[in-house]
Amino acid sequence: MALIVQKYGGTSVGTVDRIREVAKKVIQYRNDGHDVVVVVSAMSGETNRLLGLANELHDHPRGREVDVLLSTGEQVTIALLSLALEQMGMPATSYTGPQVRILTDNAHNKARIMQIDDEKIRADLSAAKVVVVAGFQGCDELGNITTLGRGGSDTTAVALAAALKADECQIYTDVDGVYTTDPRVVPEARRLDRITFEEMLEMASLGAKVLQIRSVEFASKYNVPLRVLSSFTEGGGTLITSEEASMEQALISGIAFNRDEAKLTIEGVPDQPGVAAKILGPIAAQNIEVDMIIQNIGHDSTTDFTFTVHRNDFQTAMNILQKICQELSARQVTGDEKIAKISVVGVGMRSHAGIASTMFSALAAENINISMISTSEIKISVVVDEKYLELGVRALHKAFNLEQA
Amino acid sequence: MALIVQKYGGTSVGTVDRIREVAKKVIQYRNDGHDVVVVVSAMSGETNRLLGLANELHDHPRGREVDVLLSTGEQVTIALLSLALEQMGMPATSYTGPQVRILTDNAHNKARIMQIDDEKIRADLSAAKVVVVAGFQGCDELGNITTLGRGGSDTTAVALAAALKADECQIYTDVDGVYTTDPRVVPEARRLDRITFEEMLEMASLGAKVLQIRSVEFASKYNVPLRVLSSFTEGGGTLITSEEASMEQALISGIAFNRDEAKLTIEGVPDQPGVAAKILGPIAAQNIEVDMIIQNIGHDSTTDFTFTVHRNDFQTAMNILQKICQELSARQVTGDEKIAKISVVGVGMRSHAGIASTMFSALAAENINISMISTSEIKISVVVDEKYLELGVRALHKAFNLEQA
Repeated sequence: MALIVQKYGGTSVGTVDRIREVAKKVIQYRNDGHDVVVVVSAMSGETNRLLGLANELHDHPRGREVDVLLSTGEQVTIALLSLALEQMGMPATSYTGPQVRILTDNAHNKARIMQIDDEKIRADLSAAKVVVVAGFQGCDELGNITTLGRGGSDTTAVALAAALKADECQIYTDVDGVYTTDPRVVPEARRLDRITFEEMLEMASLGAKVLQIRSVEFASKYNVPLRVLSSFTEGGGTLITSEEASMEQALISGIAFNRDEAKLTIEGVPDQPGVAAKILGPIAAQNIEVDMIIQNIGHDSTTDFTFTVHRNDFQTAMNILQKICQELSARQVTGDEKIAKISVVGVGMRSHAGIASTMFSALAAENINISMISTSEIKISVVVDEKYLELGVRALHKAFNLEQA
Repeated sequence: MALIVQKYGGTSVGTVDRIREVAKKVIQYRNDGHDVVVVVSAMSGETNRLLGLANELHDHPRGREVDVLLSTGEQVTIALLSLALEQMGMPATSYTGPQVRILTDNAHNKARIMQIDDEKIRADLSAAKVVVVAGFQGCDELGNITTLGRGGSDTTAVALAAALKADECQIYTDVDGVYTTDPRVVPEARRLDRITFEEMLEMASLGAKVLQIRSVEFASKYNVPLRVLSSFTEGGGTLITSEEASMEQALISGIAFNRDEAKLTIEGVPDQPGVAAKILGPIAAQNIEVDMIIQNIGHDSTTDFTFTVHRNDFQTAMNILQKICQELSARQVTGDEKIAKISVVGVGMRSHAGIASTMFSALAAENINISMISTSEIKISVVVDEKYLELGVRALHKAFNLEQA
């Protein structure tokens, strides 16, 4: 008998029929003897419908009132799911974020959870009820409604699981787990039974399709076992936990990739302290997020400085760099929108040499040129020409034998 | 400079264009130097949409979760109206019922307001903000969301006006005031500039189309001046206040009528104590509301007992009466679904004789037979054959010179 927090996203509760299916699944867990707390999102389409109304009345709807508006989406779902459970004979009680005092800061539209009052939930669980909580929302100390921003419902689920010291936090979605890579690119991609928080974080570009990175960080911080699984098919999904000695360590867990990037290089900048800040300061000031940053050794007192940004920010970043180029008397600015990033990720990498060489050899064997390399403790990323993305991912998947468990 | 509470119903906020018009009207009052608190209903159609979803998931949706569901309707409106006001440069803050602690009992779906915390609202008004409050909803002492039942938004507005000691509570609707009778029946019907709470209560059958009776009772109890006026046209509407010496008293204020009634008679029941309770007890037990009750003097130790019910309840009431008839050894049960009730209402009636005789003469002059009569301090009601309803109302309107101010 365990305490399980389950989260169902917008697609999983998108129609009354699907809400009924969710109710059945919840009852199944109850019948197996588990206590269940359910976190739900707004029905798919509802948030956009509400934002559409707001956009008709305001040029830039945001802030406090948008949170009042959007939080109704999850409130509708908690009531409907509770009614569905009651209809099936399962006692249930719903709570909005403010009702269980999911206390956040007052950063409207992107608030952060600070504290949760679990008293009501514990009392209901003791009374053998299913507790249904609205995801994505909370309130600040003054009682103003706040929302958590994109993927907030995942964060609500993890925060509740942490507060309740739940045995597992299950994130139901439309995929049945985390794969060694995207099965649309590599048909042999294999679902991972387990993965560590760190690997999941490094697989962000893959994982973001499955799970919001913020909720993984949260789960890692409070050591909440996270399980990603499908609302629509049976199966154990993928369990995301902290690294344990007992876990069998594969060298590499997966191949992540990202085709939304663009790279920019400012060539021939003076090789002296403070130059990186002079380049990245104006970029950051425009709220452009920078991913990889590369600066190699210089020649003749100058060096080349390269970084990648989201492809949508490419033109803005180029314009800024042109100005900086003049100011720094650098040689020239070049850029490329047609790049892709491929990463091999695995905690096993820490203790094994040769991963990099296997990776580079596999790409070379396919005549794929590497234009940038960046490494972390458990990840090696390369930037290649966009047209080689699929070929590169398939080659690496095979080189590391990921199709075999 | 006054403090005004305004309430806009579902039709008045039914589209984003209408919400924009409401915002303009509110700003007009602000520009005239008044403090404004606005109470809004759900956009028209929204409550039915939500109930439709609930009905798909539950055979008899009601209770706590239905309140969680329905209360989202007004929450959407408060956010949209606040955004519209902000877009027009008018600072506004919205509150759900629970946020301003509109404390109710825990009778879900038909809760009663017990107390309101006006602290936040007063602070916002002092800061020159418009305050927008969700009608129809509150919370119980444990923080559970409650709704007030039909017409609840009117009640919210009156309760807020009472708590804030507002100078006036304005109920915006789709009619421009209270009329001497229904203008569709009598084209000469005249809008009343003023009417007393008591008259408004007795005009229930007319008034219900304009204003929920419960909110009138509430306004009367706390002596809140109520004004009914149109969202769509200009005009002063009708002011509903307590009777004042300075008010010019017309004999009769209006002619109310109701065509939704049916009458039932149980003939030849034993004329002895307790018999009325034996008849009405089983009727009440079926939640059938009884309007008029008539029992005249008896003959030969038996009497006839007649009452009226809503026409929808006629058949159920007949079945119950047949059973009672046997139990009491009464002679027989008769009934008529084709009746209508016409009432003349006016506080002036108290101090003037002859109202009844004017009424009965006017009906007799049109050959309208009266089958039941019932009187109160400020009302005389008669039941007539349904087909004479319009003719009777027109005759009485003319007999009391209601077309003249």
